[in-house]
Amino acid sequence: MTEPASMEKIVSLCKRRGFIFQSSEIYGGLNGFWDYGPLGAELKRNLRDTWWKTMTREREDVVGLDASIIMHPNIWKASGHVETFADQMVDCKTCKGRFRADHISSIPCPQRPSKTVASCAEEKTEPRPFNLMFKTHTGPLESDDNIAYLRPETAQAIFAQYKNVLDSSRQKLPFGICQIGKAFRNEITPRNYTFRSREFEQMELEFFIKPDEVIAQTQGSVAQWHEGADLSQPQPNWGWEMWHRYWVDQRTRYYQSIGLGPDVLDYYWQKPEELAHYARACVDILFKFPFGTEELEGIAARGSFDLDQHSKFVGKPQDYFDEEIKQRYIPHVIEPSAGLDRLALAVICAAFHEEESTDDKGKKEIKTILRLHPKIAPYKCGIFPLLKNKPELVEQAQNIYRRLKKQFTCFYDESGSIGKRYARQDEIGTPFCVTVDFETIEGIKEGPQAGLLGTVTLRHRDSTQQERVKIEELDQRILPALS
Amino acid sequence: MTEPASMEKIVSLCKRRGFIFQSSEIYGGLNGFWDYGPLGAELKRNLRDTWWKTMTREREDVVGLDASIIMHPNIWKASGHVETFADQMVDCKTCKGRFRADHISSIPCPQRPSKTVASCAEEKTEPRPFNLMFKTHTGPLESDDNIAYLRPETAQAIFAQYKNVLDSSRQKLPFGICQIGKAFRNEITPRNYTFRSREFEQMELEFFIKPDEVIAQTQGSVAQWHEGADLSQPQPNWGWEMWHRYWVDQRTRYYQSIGLGPDVLDYYWQKPEELAHYARACVDILFKFPFGTEELEGIAARGSFDLDQHSKFVGKPQDYFDEEIKQRYIPHVIEPSAGLDRLALAVICAAFHEEESTDDKGKKEIKTILRLHPKIAPYKCGIFPLLKNKPELVEQAQNIYRRLKKQFTCFYDESGSIGKRYARQDEIGTPFCVTVDFETIEGIKEGPQAGLLGTVTLRHRDSTQQERVKIEELDQRILPALS
Repeated sequence: MTEPASMEKIVSLCKRRGFIFQSSEIYGGLNGFWDYGPLGAELKRNLRDTWWKTMTREREDVVGLDASIIMHPNIWKASGHVETFADQMVDCKTCKGRFRADHISSIPCPQRPSKTVASCAEEKTEPRPFNLMFKTHTGPLESDDNIAYLRPETAQAIFAQYKNVLDSSRQKLPFGICQIGKAFRNEITPRNYTFRSREFEQMELEFFIKPDEVIAQTQGSVAQWHEGADLSQPQPNWGWEMWHRYWVDQRTRYYQSIGLGPDVLDYYWQKPEELAHYARACVDILFKFPFGTEELEGIAARGSFDLDQHSKFVGKPQDYFDEEIKQRYIPHVIEPSAGLDRLALAVICAAFHEEESTDDKGKKEIKTILRLHPKIAPYKCGIFPLLKNKPELVEQAQNIYRRLKKQFTCFYDESGSIGKRYARQDEIGTPFCVTVDFETIEGIKEGPQAGLLGTVTLRHRDSTQQERVKIEELDQRILPALS
Repeated sequence: MTEPASMEKIVSLCKRRGFIFQSSEIYGGLNGFWDYGPLGAELKRNLRDTWWKTMTREREDVVGLDASIIMHPNIWKASGHVETFADQMVDCKTCKGRFRADHISSIPCPQRPSKTVASCAEEKTEPRPFNLMFKTHTGPLESDDNIAYLRPETAQAIFAQYKNVLDSSRQKLPFGICQIGKAFRNEITPRNYTFRSREFEQMELEFFIKPDEVIAQTQGSVAQWHEGADLSQPQPNWGWEMWHRYWVDQRTRYYQSIGLGPDVLDYYWQKPEELAHYARACVDILFKFPFGTEELEGIAARGSFDLDQHSKFVGKPQDYFDEEIKQRYIPHVIEPSAGLDRLALAVICAAFHEEESTDDKGKKEIKTILRLHPKIAPYKCGIFPLLKNKPELVEQAQNIYRRLKKQFTCFYDESGSIGKRYARQDEIGTPFCVTVDFETIEGIKEGPQAGLLGTVTLRHRDSTQQERVKIEELDQRILPALS
C-alpha cells in the first residue's frame, strides 16, 4: 500500500532527519529563510553537480560563470527591475501596517481583526509600488549614491559579463553561459515551505543564438518546428523556435535523469497575452507538489531584450561579430531558468513513500521510504556489522566502509536491529545497504586474500531484495547506478 | 629561467583567459566585488569540492550545513558583531566625506588634495564606530524592527543550528559541522585584487570537543602537546590543545594535497595579548602572495564562547548530554576558517610561472605556464587533431574528446599550430594534452577494434615530455593524477 505524500509528513521528515531546518529557529525563525542540514546540504550539492555537469561540463557550447550577488545598481535599471519589479502596496495611516493591494479584502485588520483591511474605517493610502529587491548600501555612507541591491536573479550577471566571456573563451554563436547562485526577493508572503522563500538558489543558462534573419541569410531558410520534429541534434538552420523547443526537450531529459518523469511533471505554455513584452515564447515546467502544481523552471525565448537594454545603458553595443557574414549584431537568447530549492523539494516529494507492514509480532507499522534517484541520494550505501559486540564483524564492516567511502558517500551504523538500520536508511533515501555477517568472516578465513574474498549481503532499497555479493565486487555493483 | 609572479601579470592573465573579471565591469565596476569567468568558476568548484571531500565526505565525524545568508538579527547581537564589528570613522562636517580614523593622516582631503584629511582645516567629528555588516530590511517596512544583516561570516549559522544538527545526525562529541558559503563585509578599503573584497566565500568548520575538565574526569588526564607529538590519529585523552594542533596539521596536509607546500606557506601564532578575549589560541596559515605574506586561514580554539552567548540570548542552554558521565555541558570549539577567494588567488599565484624560450626562427618569447595541481585545474586534458583540414584526424580527436569528457573536463582545440595549442593550455593550467596524428590513424586502420587500438601523443604540462600512448589507455593514464 502506497500513500501519496502529504506536506506535513514531508516537513516533519525533513526536520527530523536533517534535510531542512527553519533559519535561525532558536531565535524564533525568520520568515522566508531556510537552512539545509547535513542531508539537505548533500542533496543540494548533488543536484547542483548534476545540473552543472549536464549544462556545461558535458557540453562543448556552454561555459560557466560565478558572479557576485551585489552588482552595480545600474544593472537593475537596465534590466527593468528598479522600475517594475514591484507589488502594489497599501499603507494604513492609523496602524502603519503595509498590505498587498490585491490582498486587502482577505487580510484581517491588525487592530480590529473582525474586519478586513479593506472594510475597516481607517484611512489608507492609494496603492503604491513596493520594490521586491533587498536594498543595502556599499561603502561607509548610507546615501542614495551608494544604494545597492541583492540580485533578484542570477541572469543579469551573465548578460553583464557576456562580452568578457566571449572575449576570453573563444566561443562562437550559438553558445551559452550558465550559473548557479543565490538570489533574493523580499516576498510579502513567503509560502509553501521552501517553495517561495526570500533567499533562494537559481540555476540559469543564457543560451545566445543567431537571430532568425541571420539564419535565413546564411542557410536560405529557417527550420520550422512541427510535432515530432527531431530535437536531438542542433542544426545550422535552427532559429529561435527550434532552439527553444530543443531546450525544453533537454531540460525534460535532465529531470528524467534524476527521477522526475512525465507522471510528476507538467508543462504550461504561456499564452501570447501572458508573455512579457519582449518574450516570444515561454514554457513553465511544472511539478505536482502536494500543495498544487507549481513552476520548477521557466524556459523563455527572450529575443535580444537584455543585451539591447545593457547596450543602451552602457552606451556600447553588447554585440557579436559574425565572421561568416562579416557583420555585427546583438544575439538572441533562450533562457532555461530553474530553482534549486524547488527542485530539492520536488525530488523529496516525488521520492516520499509510505508503506504499511506487519512486524513479527503482528503489529502494524508505517515505514517511510525516500525513493531518491541514486545519483542524488545523500548517502549511497549504508554499511552494517550484523552485531556490534562481535569485533570481527565490526572490523570487517569498518574496513569495507573505509574502502567504499573513497568512491562515494557511505554511512556506517552498528546500533539497533538490522531491520531498524535498513529502515533508517530507507527513510533518508540510501539506495544500497551492505551487511557483514558470520558468513563474511568464514569466506575471508578460507580465502587466500584477506578482506576481499568474503561475501556480504547487498540490499536494494526499492525492491528490498537482498543478494550475496563478493566484497571485491561491491564498488562495481554500486558505481554504475550512481552516474 | 623562471621569474617570480607579479600581480600585474596575474591580473592580466586572469582577465584575458577568463578566470576573474571585475564585477559589473561594463558599468565601470563596483569596488570590492569580483566575478569568476568560465575558468575561475571551474577552479572555485574544484577547490570547494576538494575541501568538502576532505572535511566531510571522507570523515565520519563531520557533517555539512548549507544555511541562509540572511539570518535573525539577534544572532549578530549574541555573536558580538552588532556591538563590536566596526571600524572607527571620522566625518568631515564640510565635505561630508567619511574616513577611517586610522587612515586620516595618509588620505588626501577630497577638496584640497594637497593636504591630508588630518591636516586640512575643516571641522571633523570625533571618531565613531562604523559597523562593517551590510544592512537591509526584511518585509515591506523599512523600520528598525525589520533590520537584517548579510552574514559577515558563515560560522554563526553553524552555532545557531548546532542543536538541530546534533538531534538529527546522531553524532557524538567530538564532531564537527562544516559549511561553504558567501559572506559580506563592507570594507572601507577593499584591496589586493580579490584578497580583501566586500563579498567573499568562506569554508568553515566548527569542531565541537569535550571540555578539558571532562577529559580529565573520564580519562584521568589530558594529553599534553609537545614538539613531535603524533597528531595523525585522534585519541580519547585529547583536550583543546591537541585538537587545535591536530587541525593545524590536517589543514596543512590539505594545502599540500592541492599543491601549496611549505615553500609558499607560513604560520603566525597569535601572541597571548593579541588573542580575542574568548580565544585560547589562534594560528593563521599564511601564503606568500606577491603583495605580501597574508592570511589564508585562521584556526582558533574558541572555548565555549559562541554556544555560551547563544545560550544566553536564546535563554536555553545550547548544550550536550554526555552519556558517559550522565551530565550536560556546553562543548568547546576548534574553528578552522578559510577563505575560498584567497585560496583561488593563492593557487594561481603559486602556479604562475614564466619561461623564456627561443622559437625556430631564433626569436625569444616568454611563455606563461600555470602549474596548477591536476586536481584543481579547470581543464584536465586538451585534445587536438594535428591538422584541422584532415577529416580523419578531426573525427578521431572528437571521438576521444567525447569519450574522455565523460570522466573529466576536456578542451577540444583545432586552431593554430600544435605549439600554440600547447601554449594555450599551459597558460590555463591544463596538465595533459593529447594529439591525434597520422600514426594514430594508421594504428586504427590496422587494428581489429575501431578507435581504441591506435596511439596518440600524451604531453605533460610541467615536464613538456611527450609519450606515445594507446587510446584505450588514456583514461587510466590521466585519472590517477586527478584524485
